[in-house]
Amino acid sequence: MSKQADDRLCCSPVVREPLGAEQAVSLARVFKAIGEPVRLRLLSLIASHEGGEACVCDLTGAFELSGPTISHHLKVLREAGVIEGERRGTWIYYRVNPETLRLVSDSLSPASAVTA
Amino acid sequence: MSKQADDRLCCSPVVREPLGAEQAVSLARVFKAIGEPVRLRLLSLIASHEGGEACVCDLTGAFELSGPTISHHLKVLREAGVIEGERRGTWIYYRVNPETLRLVSDSLSPASAVTA
Repeated sequence: MSKQADDRLCCSPVVREPLGAEQAVSLARVFKAIGEPVRLRLLSLIASHEGGEACVCDLTGAFELSGPTISHHLKVLREAGVIEGERRGTWIYYRVNPETLRLVSDSLSPASAVTA
Repeated sequence: MSKQADDRLCCSPVVREPLGAEQAVSLARVFKAIGEPVRLRLLSLIASHEGGEACVCDLTGAFELSGPTISHHLKVLREAGVIEGERRGTWIYYRVNPETLRLVSDSLSPASAVTA
């Protein structure tokens, strides 16, 4: 356990005081959604894609998974508020919801406040 | 979607480039462990407890759950590397593994590097 890591996490909201039950439910929902390797990679692929958005057509090539399986994982991410989808023509284009990522990142980062 | 949140997350490792499959497995394991409200509250209770450590005896009062159920959740957190346990006398004392929290926090935070 490094002293540096201890210092960095000294003041994160999760570490500073016990989380309330409602706040825990709200945060856990997002952690659960991204707590699956395919969904975490989908999140990363969408976020790092050109223009910050991607359609299923851009994503399926990265996985040996069927279209419906990819769509299921996208639905879980969307229902947890991690990504947002917008239909344009034939495809739904997904982008990351930065507010949600900020919320969960801040919950573990020092010197920040959780507002959930 | 606020401009500020966009800026803050512009450079997080997850957003910057597609996560590799192994890195995704490693990170998802931790997110899954804390993606459950009771476990997230346990993590927070342990981290914010006096001296940064707590035994089951300090934790059960916060939940309407049996000792064995609390112990099960602690085991999941321990197996994911989120907390560490040390037996002293009758009790096992748990503390947060700051390296693990730093890793997952950094993965979503801007201007940082993931080393998993």
